[in-house]
Amino acid sequence: MSSAVELAQVWRGEVLESVHHGHAVICDSSGGIVEAWGDPDLVMLPRSSCKMIQALPLVESGAGLTDSQLALACASHSGASLHTGMAGAWLEEIGLGEPDLRCGSHMPKDEEAHHRLIRAGAEPCQLHNNCSGKHVGFLMLNQRLKGDADYVEPDHPVQLAVRAAFEEVTGAESPGYGIDGCSAPNFATTLAGLGRAMAFFANAHRASGARAGAAARLVAAMARHPVLVAGEGRACTDLMRAMEGRVAIKTGAEAVYVAILPEAGLGVALKVMDGATRAAECAIAAILIRLGVLSAEHPAVEKYWNAPLVNCRGRRAAWIRPGTGLA
Amino acid sequence: MSSAVELAQVWRGEVLESVHHGHAVICDSSGGIVEAWGDPDLVMLPRSSCKMIQALPLVESGAGLTDSQLALACASHSGASLHTGMAGAWLEEIGLGEPDLRCGSHMPKDEEAHHRLIRAGAEPCQLHNNCSGKHVGFLMLNQRLKGDADYVEPDHPVQLAVRAAFEEVTGAESPGYGIDGCSAPNFATTLAGLGRAMAFFANAHRASGARAGAAARLVAAMARHPVLVAGEGRACTDLMRAMEGRVAIKTGAEAVYVAILPEAGLGVALKVMDGATRAAECAIAAILIRLGVLSAEHPAVEKYWNAPLVNCRGRRAAWIRPGTGLA
Repeated sequence: MSSAVELAQVWRGEVLESVHHGHAVICDSSGGIVEAWGDPDLVMLPRSSCKMIQALPLVESGAGLTDSQLALACASHSGASLHTGMAGAWLEEIGLGEPDLRCGSHMPKDEEAHHRLIRAGAEPCQLHNNCSGKHVGFLMLNQRLKGDADYVEPDHPVQLAVRAAFEEVTGAESPGYGIDGCSAPNFATTLAGLGRAMAFFANAHRASGARAGAAARLVAAMARHPVLVAGEGRACTDLMRAMEGRVAIKTGAEAVYVAILPEAGLGVALKVMDGATRAAECAIAAILIRLGVLSAEHPAVEKYWNAPLVNCRGRRAAWIRPGTGLA
Repeated sequence: MSSAVELAQVWRGEVLESVHHGHAVICDSSGGIVEAWGDPDLVMLPRSSCKMIQALPLVESGAGLTDSQLALACASHSGASLHTGMAGAWLEEIGLGEPDLRCGSHMPKDEEAHHRLIRAGAEPCQLHNNCSGKHVGFLMLNQRLKGDADYVEPDHPVQLAVRAAFEEVTGAESPGYGIDGCSAPNFATTLAGLGRAMAFFANAHRASGARAGAAARLVAAMARHPVLVAGEGRACTDLMRAMEGRVAIKTGAEAVYVAILPEAGLGVALKVMDGATRAAECAIAAILIRLGVLSAEHPAVEKYWNAPLVNCRGRRAAWIRPGTGLA
């Protein structure tokens, strides 16, 4: 087992104020490791970075889905009206409503939606949950599997189907699970397993079979709809736009990031051990630049890679930079 | 130089999801190290954890100040009406106004104040800045030092006085500085230097001299007014209340925490290297429990030490616990 390597640094003036350590892996079409930083055998929870895996059984079920719905199923969205409106319409389309969701609610990240709720003195509903698209997808799959209403239970047919797909694309039995923020089980894997799964998605457009077909559709939907996968001003959206549809990327809570590179046939997975999103964003940007799919000069990149941290008077007081472990 | 030790762990189900490493030190009345975890020689920025040091020149200047004003000068407050009202009244008392501040503004942490601004379609003012009490103190000191208006410049008489006090209580020349979120310079020291300074504050009530007298007043003011130092629901406030005025504690950005224990004459300083506040709160609680000044059974403690992370449906899905390095 290798130690975590330094993935990001925070400098304030002349002082190295904070550092972030973690692990990263790049896998190719064979599922083998092309490059690794730290420990590829780290057992970890992918959290929301594996939503495209969780959507596989739904797409394979043959349900009629638009690209926008597929992107929303893979999203950790900001809860902007665009997202909640689309999730609500999709629910209605399948004859269900907000109370059928089991994701719970939280205040949306989208500032306009957040302020609107506060001004109205209203509470957020389950459509605002960043995972609501994934959950509408679970409900739609459940209509085909005819399971009971509690589709987030780990032994429910929906979650058994997700687990089977997860274990197939990661290439190993899951050693356990945690309950996610949205109450769905989140299956554990190794970092190499998650990288292998992303390489499967990256090579799906060249492969045959129902699973590969579903995977290729999901990658294309994510890459075509960056704003549905996250939201305005968010790293997934900004960086996917900067890569102009050539790469799909996805963040997960506690500083997980994955990237799917269909042209190169590569999958990337990384985990910052302390759970800091700022470091995961910086590290994935650095790796995408290194892989030649993201331009360091693109104006969107500066927010994440060598990003200034601006203080209360607009002064650039600190910087977050890739760590020595990525050099 | 010793490596950082594990100060906190985050568990989700059966998986160790995230870990936080850092350094901690306990110093006694001699300024010597009683106990250390990791590297006491780490060069670091104390950020807001050193506000009681930054207030020393003001108190020593003989300015007439209430205990509440002293507590507010040491605060990273939530911007509740209690805090902004008191900072505004203090400014008026010295014949100045909000535009004289140089801290800039940010949305208050206090939910009621935050929602009130949004409902009014209003922007926060500089009084909402968590550092506004410190800045009113700087302005008051500046009236005595007759410096120009830009009291946050590193070579301004106010900041030179702060630097001299900082170097005396930490026991060493500062090797540099960073610009803080509030635009004031934040002087660097070693972790042992910060611990030594906290031990100076802890023993000030038994010492003689103007500086010791000022330090003892500041410690007493912080311990007597926990809600002014932070705000409802915040760790500094909750834990100081739980210790019933026997200990003063203070957080700083990027996961710094200090504690001042006047009865034992001990000073504590810690830094979590990744800057995660959740880990700094967990680690300081663990150290205070170990030192016998905080009861592990106190209801306020569970929020920080072995704290459950509750998901969107109220389920305890994860836990943050002290790391193996603190065992």
